Formats: sequence, C-alpha cells, structure tokens
Amino acid sequence: MKKIDLRSDTVTKPTDAMIRAMAEAEVGDDVYREDPTVNRLEEIAAERLGKEAALFVTSGTQGNQVAVLTHCVNGDEVIAEAESHIFYYEGGAMSALAGVQTRTLAGVRGALRAEDVEKAIRSTTNIHFPRTKLICLENTHNRAGGAVITPEKMKSVYEVGQKHGIPVHLDGARLFNAAVALGVDVRELSQYTTSVQICLSKGLSAPVGSILAGDRAFIEEARWWRKKLGGGLRQVGYLAAPGILALTDMTERLAEDHNHAKMLAEGLRNLSLEVEPVETNIVLVKTDSIQTTAVEFLKRLADQGVYAVDFDEYVIRFTTHRHISEEDVQYVLQIVERLLASVPAAK
Amino acid sequence: MKKIDLRSDTVTKPTDAMIRAMAEAEVGDDVYREDPTVNRLEEIAAERLGKEAALFVTSGTQGNQVAVLTHCVNGDEVIAEAESHIFYYEGGAMSALAGVQTRTLAGVRGALRAEDVEKAIRSTTNIHFPRTKLICLENTHNRAGGAVITPEKMKSVYEVGQKHGIPVHLDGARLFNAAVALGVDVRELSQYTTSVQICLSKGLSAPVGSILAGDRAFIEEARWWRKKLGGGLRQVGYLAAPGILALTDMTERLAEDHNHAKMLAEGLRNLSLEVEPVETNIVLVKTDSIQTTAVEFLKRLADQGVYAVDFDEYVIRFTTHRHISEEDVQYVLQIVERLLASVPAAK
Amino acid sequence: MKKIDLRSDTVTKPTDAMIRAMAEAEVGDDVYREDPTVNRLEEIAAERLGKEAALFVTSGTQGNQVAVLTHCVNGDEVIAEAESHIFYYEGGAMSALAGVQTRTLAGVRGALRAEDVEKAIRSTTNIHFPRTKLICLENTHNRAGGAVITPEKMKSVYEVGQKHGIPVHLDGARLFNAAVALGVDVRELSQYTTSVQICLSKGLSAPVGSILAGDRAFIEEARWWRKKLGGGLRQVGYLAAPGILALTDMTERLAEDHNHAKMLAEGLRNLSLEVEPVETNIVLVKTDSIQTTAVEFLKRLADQGVYAVDFDEYVIRFTTHRHISEEDVQYVLQIVERLLASVPAAK
Amino acid sequence: MKKIDLRSDTVTKPTDAMIRAMAEAEVGDDVYREDPTVNRLEEIAAERLGKEAALFVTSGTQGNQVAVLTHCVNGDEVIAEAESHIFYYEGGAMSALAGVQTRTLAGVRGALRAEDVEKAIRSTTNIHFPRTKLICLENTHNRAGGAVITPEKMKSVYEVGQKHGIPVHLDGARLFNAAVALGVDVRELSQYTTSVQICLSKGLSAPVGSILAGDRAFIEEARWWRKKLGGGLRQVGYLAAPGILALTDMTERLAEDHNHAKMLAEGLRNLSLEVEPVETNIVLVKTDSIQTTAVEFLKRLADQGVYAVDFDEYVIRFTTHRHISEEDVQYVLQIVERLLASVPAAK
Repeated sequence: MKKIDLRSDTVTKPTDAMIRAMAEAEVGDDVYREDPTVNRLEEIAAERLGKEAALFVTSGTQGNQVAVLTHCVNGDEVIAEAESHIFYYEGGAMSALAGVQTRTLAGVRGALRAEDVEKAIRSTTNIHFPRTKLICLENTHNRAGGAVITPEKMKSVYEVGQKHGIPVHLDGARLFNAAVALGVDVRELSQYTTSVQICLSKGLSAPVGSILAGDRAFIEEARWWRKKLGGGLRQVGYLAAPGILALTDMTERLAEDHNHAKMLAEGLRNLSLEVEPVETNIVLVKTDSIQTTAVEFLKRLADQGVYAVDFDEYVIRFTTHRHISEEDVQYVLQIVERLLASVPAAK
Repeated sequence: MKKIDLRSDTVTKPTDAMIRAMAEAEVGDDVYREDPTVNRLEEIAAERLGKEAALFVTSGTQGNQVAVLTHCVNGDEVIAEAESHIFYYEGGAMSALAGVQTRTLAGVRGALRAEDVEKAIRSTTNIHFPRTKLICLENTHNRAGGAVITPEKMKSVYEVGQKHGIPVHLDGARLFNAAVALGVDVRELSQYTTSVQICLSKGLSAPVGSILAGDRAFIEEARWWRKKLGGGLRQVGYLAAPGILALTDMTERLAEDHNHAKMLAEGLRNLSLEVEPVETNIVLVKTDSIQTTAVEFLKRLADQGVYAVDFDEYVIRFTTHRHISEEDVQYVLQIVERLLASVPAAK
Repeated sequence: MKKIDLRSDTVTKPTDAMIRAMAEAEVGDDVYREDPTVNRLEEIAAERLGKEAALFVTSGTQGNQVAVLTHCVNGDEVIAEAESHIFYYEGGAMSALAGVQTRTLAGVRGALRAEDVEKAIRSTTNIHFPRTKLICLENTHNRAGGAVITPEKMKSVYEVGQKHGIPVHLDGARLFNAAVALGVDVRELSQYTTSVQICLSKGLSAPVGSILAGDRAFIEEARWWRKKLGGGLRQVGYLAAPGILALTDMTERLAEDHNHAKMLAEGLRNLSLEVEPVETNIVLVKTDSIQTTAVEFLKRLADQGVYAVDFDEYVIRFTTHRHISEEDVQYVLQIVERLLASVPAAK
Repeated sequence: MKKIDLRSDTVTKPTDAMIRAMAEAEVGDDVYREDPTVNRLEEIAAERLGKEAALFVTSGTQGNQVAVLTHCVNGDEVIAEAESHIFYYEGGAMSALAGVQTRTLAGVRGALRAEDVEKAIRSTTNIHFPRTKLICLENTHNRAGGAVITPEKMKSVYEVGQKHGIPVHLDGARLFNAAVALGVDVRELSQYTTSVQICLSKGLSAPVGSILAGDRAFIEEARWWRKKLGGGLRQVGYLAAPGILALTDMTERLAEDHNHAKMLAEGLRNLSLEVEPVETNIVLVKTDSIQTTAVEFLKRLADQGVYAVDFDEYVIRFTTHRHISEEDVQYVLQIVERLLASVPAAK
C-alpha cells in the first residue's frame, strides 16, 4: 500500500546534494569555533536574515529556549500568543528552564494585536508585577494553520516593543514559508525582530538543525546558554553542510508545497469538509461536521496509508512538503472521499 | 481633612481585643513546632476549613506559592484564571520559584468554566507537552470585582480535577467574604479544593498572616517549602493570637462591608457612573465615560482625602472594610459628585 | 523537673519591654510602605550597620535568599563556605529558588581564605563556566562553633571581591555576637560587605525577624524578591517594634551569653570532654571519646530536662542565651557529670 | 609548520568508514521514534552498557543534565566530586536548569570515598535540609588527569546509594578509556550505576553525540527532558550511524592513546617536569617548577604548532587521541625540550 505522510514537514529527508555535502564537509571542533562549515552556515544565515550574527542549534525548541534564556532572567514575564509553539509545544520549558512567567494573549489567526501587547506590558513600578522582558511572535503560526503574519503586523508589535524597550523574538520555524507566501525577502519580516529562529529541517529539508540570529552581543551570550543545554557540539559541520543548502537552494521550492496545500484544501472543501483558510503548507480540517473525532478519522486514514496529526478533538492537520506530489494530494482526496462515503450521514 | 482609605481591606488595623491577645499570647519556637498559639490557630483553621491540617504563613502570596511548590515540580503546568491574583499579582513567582508554566484561561466573572479547564488539561502522552499538575481557583475573585464563585461552579471544576487526578488549589484570600455573601458555611466552598489559602489580614483584620490548609501529608511537605522561602518563624504566636480572633470573631462582620460596598456602588450609579455588579466588598468603577483615566481621577480623589487604586487604565477599585462606615461612604459619594461636576461633560 | 533549653538562642522570648512596645506600636500597611514602626526599624538598622538602606524580613533564611536572588540571576555561581548556614541549612534554596550553583570552599574555623576565594572565581571567558556573582560569608559561623571572623579576614575577602567586581553578602545572623566578642562596633565588620543580614530574633530576643541591609538600589530591588517569597507583610510594625529594642537595648548583653558559654565549655573540659574553642555563645562538644553518639547522649540529657542539638554524629551543640543563667550552666554541668559517671568507661 | 593538537580528544574527526556510514544511513524522524539508525544505536548502546534502554543525546553535557533533571526535582541536593565535569564544566546547569543544589566532596584522584558520600547524605527528617536525590560519579575523571575509578570503588559508592535509596549517575564521557585501562568489559563499571552517560565523540571519534542509558522508565522520562532542552532531533540517524561504529569498532583502539599518553608523560618527566600519574589518555603537567604559568607556556607551545589547554594556573593538560601518533609524541617532546632550554633556570 502506498504510504503518504502528511504528519509534518519535519519528516522530509535530505536531498542527494545534501547527503553529498555532508559526506564531503570540512569539519572541526565547533565548541572551539573551528568548524569551517558551521562558521560558513552561521555567516550565510546571519546575512540572509539581516542580522549581525547567527548560531546553529539542534532544534527550533533549542533556538527558542536559548533566546528566552538570553533575553530574560528568572522572575521576568514573556508575552506570547496563547497557542504559539514556544508556549504550547515546548514542554513548559520557558518556565522550567528560564523561570519566566508566560503572559499569553489570544491572537487573530496567530497574530498578536499591537494594542493587546501594549496593554499586557506590565507597569515597572508595581511591586506585585513581574517585569515584561520579551515579546514572542511566530510566523507562520503553526496552530493557526500555517497563517502568515504580514510585515505590517509584525512592525506594529515590534514598535510597541521598541517604545517600551522590550525585545521581540520571532519563532520563525517556518519563516521562509511566510516570505514565499508573501512574495517578499525574508528580511522584510526579520527586520521587525530582535532575535529570530528559523528551522533548516522542516520544508527546507535539512536533516537536523535550526538557526538563532540576532546582534553580535546577543549571539555571544546565547552560546553560553546553548552550552548549558548541551547544544555545544563538536564536528557538527556534517549537519551544517546540508543546512547551507537548505538556505541557498531550498527556500523557493516551498511555493510548491503551498500549491499542494491549497489543492488539498480545495479538494476537501469540495467534499463538504470545513477547512481553515490555507496560506502556506498547512491544512486544518474540522471533523465535527462528520461526527467523528480527529483521532478516529486519523485511524481510518492510517488504515489506508495516509498519515496526519490531530490538532484538537475535532481538528486534523495535514502538512505538505517535498515528498508530497500533486498525485499524492489527489490520492489522499480519493481516500478521504471513500471514507466519507462510509461515514454515517452528518446531521 | 478627613482621610478615607478604600485602597484595600489590607489596611485594616487589629481590634483592641486582638492587640490584647497579642500582648498576652503564650509563645514558643514555631520552627520546633512549640508555639502553642500557632498550634491552636492551625487547629482552629483546619477545623474551620474542613481540612486535616493547616499552616500559618506570612501572606496570601506565600500561602499560594507554597501550595504550588508543594503540588508541582519544575516543568509542570498550572491552570489558572487569566487575571487571578496568583498569576497576575504575585510577581511571576509560580514560574520564578517553582519552574511551572501557567496556562491561563479567561473566566466568567472570575469563574473558570469546567469545560474550559478540561479542554486545557494536557494529554499525558505527547512529549511536546508539560504535565498539568494543578488547577487554581480564586474566591472571591479580586480582579473580577470581588465576584463570588458558587459552590456549584467550584464543584464542577473540582470534579474535572478529580477525574484527571489533578488537585485544585483555592486562593481564598477573601473566602469568608464569599461564604458570607452566599450565606453558607465556608466549608461548602473549601470542600471542593485539595488545598486552600485564606487571609487573616484583610477584612478579618489580623495584622499579618494567612493560612494554608489541606491534608496532613500536604501540609507536612508544605512546611519544607515554607522554610525555604524564609517563612519558618520563631515566636510567631504574637501574630497567631490575633489570627485566632480573626477566625472566631470577625467573619460575620464582613456582611457590613458588603452592605457598604453596595451602598457605594448604588450611589456611584446614581451619579451616572458605570459600576460593575457588586457581590462582596469590592466596587469597580469605570472612568471612561467621564473621559478621565483612573490614575487622573484617583489623584483628584486623593486631593480630597479619598484613596482607592487603579485596576486598569479606566477602572478604579474601591474596597470597603472595618474602618469604613456608612458615613464614610456618603462622604465619598459627595466628593465624587463634586468632582464629576467639575469634570468636562462626557460625550 | 527543671527544664534548661540550650538548643538555640532562637528560643528566646521577648522582654516585657518588647511586649509593651508591640502592644503600643503604631502600624500601617507595610506593602504600601506606610508602617511607621517598620520604617523606623529599617532606618535604625541601616544606620547601625552603616548601610544606605535596610529591609525587614521574616527570617535569616529569607534575608539570605532575598540577597542571593537580588545579587544573582539563574545560571550564576555563588562562593560560600562548605558548612555555611546559607548552603547547609537553607534547604538548597539558593539553587531551588535562584537557580544559582554553589561553589563551596572549606574555611578555617568558618573563615574563607581570601586566596581560596580568588582561586575559585571563574574565568569569565570560558564558556564551560558559570559566572561567579556573589561571595557569601557568615559571622559568627554557626557550624564552626560560633567562631568569629575578624575584620582583617573579612577585609581580605572583600578586597578580592572588589578586585573582581563581585559583591560580598554577609550572613550576620549572629553578627552582634561577633562585634561584642571582638569589642568593636558592628560597622567594623559590616563595612566589608555589599549586603548584610542580621537576625533580631536570636540572642537579641525579638520574637521574629531579620534585617537585610545594603545600598539603596539593592534594597529597592530586594523588595521585589521579598514580595515574590511572600515576605511583603501588612501591619508588621507589631514585629518591628520589639525589633527596634533588639537593636537598641539588647546587643551589649550578648557578652553575658558568651561568659556563660565559656563557663560551660570550661566545665565540660574539666569533665574530660573534648570541647571546641568557644568565642561567642556556642559550645560544640565531641562525644566520640565517650563512645556515645550525639543523639544518644542528647536523649539522656533530655531525660534530665537539658536540651541541646546534634551537629554531627558525635558532636553536640549547646547555645547560651538570655534565658540561661550562671546557675543553669552549673546545673547542666552537674547533670553531665552524673551522666558521664554512668557511661561505660571510655577507651 | 606541523600542527599537533593535544587540546582534547573531542577534536577527533570521524573515520572514512564513519563518513560512509553517514552518507548511507537509513533515517527517519526521531521525534516520532522512526529513525531506524538511531533506534539501532540505542539498542546497541543499551546492550553494551548492560542497561534496559538508551537515548541518543547531542553531548555529554546534555546527557548529564537530562539525567539530573530526570532523577531530581527542584529543591533536591546532588552529591558530586568537587572537580567533576558535571559540576565544574557545565556552566552551573544543574542548578540553573534543574534547581538542585550541588554538594561537592573532594575525591581521591577523582574517586569519591563511600564513607564521605554516606556522611554527606542528608537526614530526611530535618526541615532545614534539602533531600539528597542523586550521587554523581565520573570515570575516567577528567580533572584528576584521566584517573580510573576501579569497579571496587564504584561498587562501594553504589552500595551506599542503594542502602539509602539514592540513584547513582555516572558521567562516563570517557568510560571506555577506563574499561580499556582496567582490561574489563565496560559493564563491570556500568553495573554500579543507575544511569550512565558515555560520549561517542571523544576518543571513539564519532563527530557528535553521547548516550544516556538506564532502565526503561528512566529513559522514557528522560525523553521528555531532552525535548525541553531542544535535544529532540529529526533525521539524526546521520549522526547515529557513525555513533554505531564508535561503539563497535573504536573502543579497543583507545589502548593506543593510553600508550601515547604514557610515552609523553615519561618523556616529560625525563625533562624534569612534574607530571601526574597517567592512567589513560590525559597527561597533566605542572609548570610551577619552571616558573611559568600554564597560559604562558601554552603560548610558546602554540608558536611551535603544539596545542594543549590550561587546567589551572600552573597545570597544562595534554590529551592523546586517534590523530596523535608516536612520532607526534616524540616531536612534542623535542619542542618542549627546546622550550625548556630557553626558559630561565628553575630555582
């Protein structure tokens, strides 16, 4: 049976060019900062994101957590969207590791409103309050269904931060998806951040790794926290080499994933399913209209070789990526159609 | 000029009987658990709250934080109302001290909905999630304007906790206000909690102190955390003695504060001000209709010897207590009337 | 049976004057900084210790922990003596609450050697290291048997701190004992500190409380951390009032406790027991020569109404204080003599 | 100029076979536990170490810290050797991340004495104490100069742990060096541990990575903490593949490094330098006899293309590894001889 894996773009395997680059990588001990391939990746990434410096980290979570640990001290407060990855999916690490309290605000399709952010910033004179030391954004926003935050919206939050002297960290695990969807250079988005994390390993297909970028002093300090988390590695040029290709060769191809996601969404809507607006490579489908929980429907899909994940009791997430072709999308739609036919009629 | 202090019921001074009790208290070293007055207070408090054991702590914040530290370990998640005191006014201590992440939910007049709580409890099998280890309630709810959470509502949340094996901690800083307002024994409320904190020093007029109550094993463990916070005291019977009177003699009189608060609210409404529903001793007044910020209006009140606090840019909180008489309320209303007359006409 | 309690000077009860001062104290809400008695205590204490500002805290542990939380952030390292109270007896709070690592050094009778401290300060350029952000001293040193650290020794450590830009915090729970023993003003000692904590409740006989003193900015910041620990209290002037007397009337009388301690030590030595040198009000006695564990011997003493504490498997600590008279010392010696007679002959 | 790098065995590059294994590795998404190469590595490692389960982590620091986070909760105390890597070189992470206090004991050539450990275990009934929840060992011990802890010594500490219900974690970054030096199977050592961490990337030459092993429940829980630290990776089979070869093909060759280290030590002694006993691949040389600081001497060595690291003001560490041949050792000795000739005569 054909197996179509739409669980996440993290399942992408590296390209042949990436594997070659890995095998041929010139390496050194990166704790001594002597891995030339890592150094090159960090330079390229910094340039690409319009920042002074960058740091290779092993995951988006590590990049995000190092950012929080570097921007804040224990007892501070961090503003984040109520369903942002850094709050929702990182095991409570911000509070566990950095000792910061999370002030969560409900966004609009993942986008924090500048006025809400400003209202949530704590008075610095009231002894009952923690101090607001960081604002976190996420673009594209995963739980909002891969929603894109426009440069205008990012700018408005960034300006609130600037006004109050509060840095903005962007979880840009899928920032290139946003840039491609908007048709802008990624710097149009990263300019409205103090620090930014991007993943090399999702749609960009590198096997492992993320980048944390910011100004030089920030990145120097971030190295200390990365070390404490056990993220100071040795001959890690073997991972940096495919990471370089992720940045140089793979960003434009994300458009293809977006097309496939739209195709999938349209097909699902044609099957009378309720589907969230699709902006990038994520498709959220509601299953309540077919009186089936996400978990139940996912089981039936899996029986047919189609894999996705549950996002809520009645919400399924499909994610397109390099290994999903137009044919795969059509195949999935056929499977869903067949399954719906066998589902007891919706009310 | 007359000075009327409606900032908080924390400003209440002890009664003469309390001061006498203090001066005559039999004391000992409470770290050795040899202060008979403290021991008696803890017994009385436990009995009053229907719990196995109780612990004297120096403040509501200390009681709440000790509860979190005792129920949870670093990396856990705690569900709390979005504007609950434990989250909003305790300096981010839950995350700073206990390393727990706060999952905040917007309540309805301070009351968490059981279905929202249940939805917010994390799956225990997804490695991306922290574990939900505590649900926090607050009754009466300060920022909701002294709103009372009914036994029914508390029960419904408690049952969700029981179902999932998650304890419920109640910040009952003003729990006796709730009981008096409802006309029920305080145990009708505390029965739906695993642990409960009550303040002796607010409307109950003791100079200092709170009680944390729960089962015996919980309180034993809580002693260890209280010690780490520096809350293990010596001849603290001097504070426990008035605390006993707070519990035995002062709870019923809270009805008076509630009457005064309602009187004040009605008077303010008669002056065309928008006032939140009053259930206990807190009155929230909106100042946007008079195009004046809370801080500005408070300044003018203070110039007339009337003191309250800002709760939001356009919200003022008045709190009634033992030192506020019916005459004081009338006097405040006169002051407000005069100030409103001088305020430029509202739109 | 007569009961003689030499367990700790914490068991001291307030003087009649203290109780009167308590009953007559003028109080206010100290969270609003409106308790005149607390304010006066803080002024007196700051002046007495030669610091800009002071803060009332509920215990020595709270004062010490607030100091660490204020001087350091998570990830820092603190140098402390290997058996100092802050490390040994505060429940691991420095690491639990402040997230700092403790670098412990064995002192000489409790005194850190300046050269050891300097060697232990971490290089600030090696990414494998935490940063050294605080040096903690203790004077008198409890586990070293109430040993006094001379101004010269304190100065030498303080100068190392100054040289490296590292503050020195002094746990001066019994600092007045040191000053009295040395015959110097307490400022001779506190001048070699950045912050200092003293206990009002040990030999000085106040029922509850300690003082943390330092420069104004430090104390302002300390208020925030005290609040998070639940140490922001209301009408706490009732505790401050006896605290004032502790500072103004009680320091000189410590000499008496020291005399009694020396008397006790001499008597015990005359009974052929090994006793550590006595400098203040603490007497450490070894019990290995009588082949009896401390716990065992303490039980026999308790059967005779004499109470002390075990400090090690074969070490007992006796502490003299205001409630211990010369007659009490003689009585204790008689008891011990009688017990020794019944002990099987030592090897 | 020839460049000889004796700074650390972490500088070793992978073998050609490792690079081939990397390029040909079958991979999957390891967060979903679907990377067959990672799964195989974890099975092989668990078997090799005699444990139920194992977990790939990105560094020794990450393995150690995950172990502490999994064994302990905030507020606990951990016993470790005073110059152990986990305490000395991991940025204070134990306290920063896990909130545990470190109780350090001076070992004998890195080995904790069982009686010291037992004495350091805290009474569980004294409220002033943290609870001892973990004992950490290190074998070989880096700062003790690659000293080997014998199975007998490990056993004696492990038995103390067993007696008191306290787990033992072994930092076995160079555990295979110990096994090879002792001529025993590595299980002879790992049997006396509850959890063990070994590095694949030092003498064993894998580019990146370590293994944490223990019982199944421990490793399941460790996965959660690894995720929070950002150590949950995707197609990390590319690192696991050379890791497998590290375990299967590279352990026996460590004997060669040991021979070279002994050769180097003997040569240095012949040049009248004071050298610590050499048991494995680490050589500690004192420079005080030549009145030159370590840093100064290292500069002169570096000018001749020879690299090592300073371990103390007057101590240099040389580490042998796969890229250091017998000729290299002879060359280094010639350089040192020449440098010593130019050094002003020692006293």
